[in-house]
Amino acid sequence: MNGYTGKILRVDLSEGKTWVDEMPESFYRRYLGGNGFVAYYLLHEMPKGVDALGPDNLLIFGTGTFTGLPIAGAGRSTVGAKSPLTGGYGSADVGGFFGAELKQAGYDGIVVHGKAPEPVYLWINDGEVEIRDASHLWGKSTLETQETIQEELDDKRVRLAMIGPAGEKLVRYACVINDLRHAAGRTGTGAVMGSKNLKAVAARGKARVPVADQEKFRELSRWMVENWKDQHWGMHDLGTPGGLMGLNAMGALPTRNFQDGQFEGAEKITGSTLRDTIMTGREGCYACPVRCKRVVEVHEEGMDIDPIYGGPEYETIGSFGSNCGVDDLKAISKAHEICNATSMDTISAGMAVSFAMECFENGLLTTEDTGGLELRFGNAEAMVALTQMIADREGLGDLLAEGTDIAAAKIGGSASEYSITVKGQPFPMHECRTRHGQGLGYALSPTGADHMHNFWDDGMANEPLGETFQELGVYEALPRHDLSPGKVRAYMYGSNWQWVHNHLGNCMFISWSRDQMANIVSAMTGWKTNVWELMRAGERGVTMMRAFNMREGLTRDDDRLPLRMQSHFVSGSVNEEPIDPEVLEEAKETFYAMMGWDPETGVPTEAKLQELDIAWVADQLK
Amino acid sequence: MNGYTGKILRVDLSEGKTWVDEMPESFYRRYLGGNGFVAYYLLHEMPKGVDALGPDNLLIFGTGTFTGLPIAGAGRSTVGAKSPLTGGYGSADVGGFFGAELKQAGYDGIVVHGKAPEPVYLWINDGEVEIRDASHLWGKSTLETQETIQEELDDKRVRLAMIGPAGEKLVRYACVINDLRHAAGRTGTGAVMGSKNLKAVAARGKARVPVADQEKFRELSRWMVENWKDQHWGMHDLGTPGGLMGLNAMGALPTRNFQDGQFEGAEKITGSTLRDTIMTGREGCYACPVRCKRVVEVHEEGMDIDPIYGGPEYETIGSFGSNCGVDDLKAISKAHEICNATSMDTISAGMAVSFAMECFENGLLTTEDTGGLELRFGNAEAMVALTQMIADREGLGDLLAEGTDIAAAKIGGSASEYSITVKGQPFPMHECRTRHGQGLGYALSPTGADHMHNFWDDGMANEPLGETFQELGVYEALPRHDLSPGKVRAYMYGSNWQWVHNHLGNCMFISWSRDQMANIVSAMTGWKTNVWELMRAGERGVTMMRAFNMREGLTRDDDRLPLRMQSHFVSGSVNEEPIDPEVLEEAKETFYAMMGWDPETGVPTEAKLQELDIAWVADQLK
Repeated sequence: MNGYTGKILRVDLSEGKTWVDEMPESFYRRYLGGNGFVAYYLLHEMPKGVDALGPDNLLIFGTGTFTGLPIAGAGRSTVGAKSPLTGGYGSADVGGFFGAELKQAGYDGIVVHGKAPEPVYLWINDGEVEIRDASHLWGKSTLETQETIQEELDDKRVRLAMIGPAGEKLVRYACVINDLRHAAGRTGTGAVMGSKNLKAVAARGKARVPVADQEKFRELSRWMVENWKDQHWGMHDLGTPGGLMGLNAMGALPTRNFQDGQFEGAEKITGSTLRDTIMTGREGCYACPVRCKRVVEVHEEGMDIDPIYGGPEYETIGSFGSNCGVDDLKAISKAHEICNATSMDTISAGMAVSFAMECFENGLLTTEDTGGLELRFGNAEAMVALTQMIADREGLGDLLAEGTDIAAAKIGGSASEYSITVKGQPFPMHECRTRHGQGLGYALSPTGADHMHNFWDDGMANEPLGETFQELGVYEALPRHDLSPGKVRAYMYGSNWQWVHNHLGNCMFISWSRDQMANIVSAMTGWKTNVWELMRAGERGVTMMRAFNMREGLTRDDDRLPLRMQSHFVSGSVNEEPIDPEVLEEAKETFYAMMGWDPETGVPTEAKLQELDIAWVADQLK
Repeated sequence: MNGYTGKILRVDLSEGKTWVDEMPESFYRRYLGGNGFVAYYLLHEMPKGVDALGPDNLLIFGTGTFTGLPIAGAGRSTVGAKSPLTGGYGSADVGGFFGAELKQAGYDGIVVHGKAPEPVYLWINDGEVEIRDASHLWGKSTLETQETIQEELDDKRVRLAMIGPAGEKLVRYACVINDLRHAAGRTGTGAVMGSKNLKAVAARGKARVPVADQEKFRELSRWMVENWKDQHWGMHDLGTPGGLMGLNAMGALPTRNFQDGQFEGAEKITGSTLRDTIMTGREGCYACPVRCKRVVEVHEEGMDIDPIYGGPEYETIGSFGSNCGVDDLKAISKAHEICNATSMDTISAGMAVSFAMECFENGLLTTEDTGGLELRFGNAEAMVALTQMIADREGLGDLLAEGTDIAAAKIGGSASEYSITVKGQPFPMHECRTRHGQGLGYALSPTGADHMHNFWDDGMANEPLGETFQELGVYEALPRHDLSPGKVRAYMYGSNWQWVHNHLGNCMFISWSRDQMANIVSAMTGWKTNVWELMRAGERGVTMMRAFNMREGLTRDDDRLPLRMQSHFVSGSVNEEPIDPEVLEEAKETFYAMMGWDPETGVPTEAKLQELDIAWVADQLK
């Protein structure tokens, strides 16, 4: 085609050896990157039914097509594995700098097999690869790990993807932390990393990511330089928590473990409050001028927060804040710091705390269980303390480290009603009773409840409908409380495009139009591509993930919403409607059929796999 | 959305009244134009099971989104109806000037209902509409018709879509002739026009087709002005017959009623010979600089050919030439003149002649049947004479005017083996045993064997694969003699895009890239669109046509190839392989499934109709 190609690094930790896949150009064009790579390797190379925390699981780092290009949005990459939290397809997106560095070091991805006999880290230095001892790093925080590794490699510019103690201790929602401030948060890939005795991947690369058409690329790049402030100043100024008050007004701010959608303390934890109080700086990802990430710093009696870990994003503020009934930004930021230091997903950790709080409020847990913590909604100190206990697997934290589904089963009684999960993964901070398309997305996401790839865009409910929806073939606004086929198709198109963001390693917050994204791919690779081809790649990716889940034994029944979504908010309705499970079942069938999956079982049909040019996947489903 | 809208003219000839549909913008965006309009009205407004030649059939003229824009390729439009030839979806594309004039006169399309008590023509003058008497025109050639109407309207610039005597006499493959030189050739829409006593539609419009973004439009327009010669000089120089020798070399030039794929007289009838002998000029369509149409002129003993009718295209040269074993360009051009004067599809007429020739050679027809004609392959005079007899429904011509399927049934014996049709419509001039994808296209086309919308691109068999295929997600070249799922998907994507050409009223020979086409739509309408949205519109269109055929009683069995495609060329194999009917059946099932149609029956599923945002079509299938 155009000579665009690259390398995938293979590492077998059991054998202590590494090798390289040089894949043909069609591999890159077909799968692009990110979850495209992850799904390919998980399906193609990993046998069915392996233990997610055993040596046969694969841990995969995948950059996207854009990753490492000097443009806004191109700082993202993906970490994937079979998930110890869901038992199915595990993956998490992450920003920061590691992904770009990995690509500049010569690799589009890493596939990690096996388990090291002793703790190790991987050192990738401009194409050279070394498996190095990490015994001295085991048990260390991410900060200590980074400092030590940068010191021993004598290079402050080494970028790291790593785990802290939570990953080592196999907290089922341990995450991978990049550069201290960026989390590949969801589905427990940090636990998989821990199970492999892999403490970190360190990368340093001096090569520029090659661009086939520099002139075209510069033109696109210039456009963003000239336009980003118009588009993204709010995001720069307030970060992701900038939208918190809007969500609260809409009734979409998860509150007290999803009992409500509005939080009386919302104003105390919103983006502008953060900016005007403990925020001391802004940070961003590789090559991005927007710098939407927050840096917070606190030094006062009983509370020190190190700015090195950055600061909380909206999801973190929601999960430890409103969702725990906590209106204290310092406490929230402390919980955030704990999570980044120990490598825990802030969403799942916050949701574990809120789950425990609801159990406590209902007498299913007592101070005996909590080690004396008065685990009531709004108790900021208890929230912080329990977060640390989870990371340490201490006391009740040990149980909660298994995830709220397992914990609920152990606790018994009505506890399972308080576990707000899909496929074992807790909801992110977007209430779906105010917008049923989001609920459909949670139910259908291959990774369990997820806000990255299955995001329902509220704009679809607004007249006049924005042009970004119209170009998806949605010509009329769609009511929020609706799961009719019209909603299902709009969701399907929208989520397929979300997967494109992931595959390209592009940040969905950056306002490249779809055509511009296709043009960036063209400029970089030399391929003459278009939105259609990219959309098909997104569809291909999610179909592979679906196939993986089906192979691993998940079924249609796993595409269900927690019971709570069938009832009203506790404090009365605010733009919300419960989601009728029968309506959801119908919508699921419609979605399966529209995707070319069996309408009854949701298993991708052979014809669809053939149409997506991945007929080989059918063998995995036999 | 953006205020883009337009008008569809409705005419009831039985009642002698006209009215206007002002459709919402979403109608235009969803259906675009051309067959998008035709399929919409046929399904939405016409009851099931009407007689194709009765008053309840609808005759629909549909411009495309581009039609009338001052750019290359934008001269095309569509004529559709239930086909008297196939009993299913009838439609034909046409170039020339009428479509642009209609749009400039204020209408995006015309839907003709009923039947006029006496012959009439329609006069559309800058939005004003009049039904005028045409009794004096009945029986007249297209030339006489045009001259008379232009005279009585006192305007030489009036553009006409009209029929000649073949249309009046309900030759089942009578066509609609625009501007004397351009034929909406296939599926017998001219017979439908005749059955309605509608002799012509005359249009004159002085309004410019509005363009939302003039600057963007001018930029695209400029690009073509600067580049067309690089891309299209061969087409300008040699016209569509320029490729004849290439097809012959490949074994794809239909010869003697598809008995062979190479013709010993090919060089005598190819584009360069035409240019260097009887061609006296070049002609084009509205706004197109390429001027690929030929003008021929002959004045000699026993042979006068009027240049006013233009000259034969490749399809015509194939059907009356190699396909009848005729290597005489003058005779071919004469047959072409007859067809344009009387309004007959040159492909179907030539195929009727070649069918009769094979019957004659095999003793199924004798000089008694032919009125003394020695109807042997290669007999140019007999070919011309029989063509005229068909138009006049004289002698054997009357039987052949019913189409070769009906004629074969009447003749009996092995005659049915010589009727090379799908759904009753004769093959166009592309042998498919040298490229099985083309055969798949013939079988699956909603209009029967067709070369416009279901064209298999030979380029897909070549390494390195062109980028236009790669951007359709086809990354490896595909063997010619193959109907594997990989071929089926490539064909599906390719043909869906062919429908986009039709819906936009764009000429498929003009080298706009897919992205440029999306950009032209954007510039014109103000919609932010992309290749994906357009591709979905194409898929929507063909699915509606499929639904129409299913409603009208066609079944999977009608998607079959004639028996001849199961055997080798008579003179030995040239790059050809018979098409195994079992393999074809499998490919059909694969195609149905990939399209979201029932894999067994080929009926579009409800989920697919919902996904394409045409759920209303499901009611038509109940």
